[in-house]
Amino acid sequence: MITMADVNQMDFEQFIERFGNVVEHCPLAAGAIWASRPFSDVNDIHECVSTFLDSLPYHGRQAVLRVHPDLAGRVAQQGTLTSESAGEQRSAGLTELTEEERQQLTDQNHRYKAKFGFPFVVCARQNKKAAILSGLEERLRNDEDEELRTGLEEVKKITYLRLLDIVGPAEGQPETAERED
Amino acid sequence: MITMADVNQMDFEQFIERFGNVVEHCPLAAGAIWASRPFSDVNDIHECVSTFLDSLPYHGRQAVLRVHPDLAGRVAQQGTLTSESAGEQRSAGLTELTEEERQQLTDQNHRYKAKFGFPFVVCARQNKKAAILSGLEERLRNDEDEELRTGLEEVKKITYLRLLDIVGPAEGQPETAERED
Repeated sequence: MITMADVNQMDFEQFIERFGNVVEHCPLAAGAIWASRPFSDVNDIHECVSTFLDSLPYHGRQAVLRVHPDLAGRVAQQGTLTSESAGEQRSAGLTELTEEERQQLTDQNHRYKAKFGFPFVVCARQNKKAAILSGLEERLRNDEDEELRTGLEEVKKITYLRLLDIVGPAEGQPETAERED
Repeated sequence: MITMADVNQMDFEQFIERFGNVVEHCPLAAGAIWASRPFSDVNDIHECVSTFLDSLPYHGRQAVLRVHPDLAGRVAQQGTLTSESAGEQRSAGLTELTEEERQQLTDQNHRYKAKFGFPFVVCARQNKKAAILSGLEERLRNDEDEELRTGLEEVKKITYLRLLDIVGPAEGQPETAERED
């Protein structure tokens, strides 16, 4: 855990090194928000990231989802997930799927990507495998714009928890704070 | 080298795996332009990447530069450059600097970053170390907007050469084609 004073003293290289994966495979987000320092707390950093993601052109927002790995997919099985993703998928129980559950998830991921052109993204640390499987089934019924919006909101939740891991909660907020925005 | 037919058949995961670093540390670019396939040739892909980069918000364009490593800098010395960057820096002679040249480059990189808030980016494969050193001195005199514009144009040149390495030149263009745009 580092203090906000530490964060605000970082040059952009240090900042990108530390915050480069708060949005999965998207160091651009850290590179962009560095210009907005000094930050007051985790919520401030999170707001800057969210604003940046929302400011991306349509194809850019699709791309933010496209660089995410499938849940319990090929990259997870190869063991080449980012350490953040690996921990998150583990916490949701996705490393302990039955053969039937794995098959179901693989099939649904496949259908989801065929329909929307980007992968199903959900904040795994706020869900367990049963909720993820049923949520995926449900979200498959949405249209592309809805899913792009929903997926990006999930990215923001993932980012918030990753930021908490680095800088801790804002003053007066409990350690386990999970914002609803 | 792969054919355009191969490229146009790729799903987004395959595409991002192959083209994810045509813009240094910015798989988002590949993720974004995948939606624009089928591509006719290298120029078409390059145009899509350029359009995407230009469509980024101001902080996003700064960030595209910020995720680039310094020429002959810390990352190069640690040996942790991307393979593309390593080859490019080598081709410019930046792995064979005298101690004096290295010191000069380090000092100028430092001044450049302090002035602009992003690193000096130049297409190393189109330059030799002497031209890079004098170019850096010259570009230090520009203002931030000019340098953001110039840096991004250099990124596009780097991207073009990286694309040529993957898919080869367009029909009727020589292997060594270097576009002026």
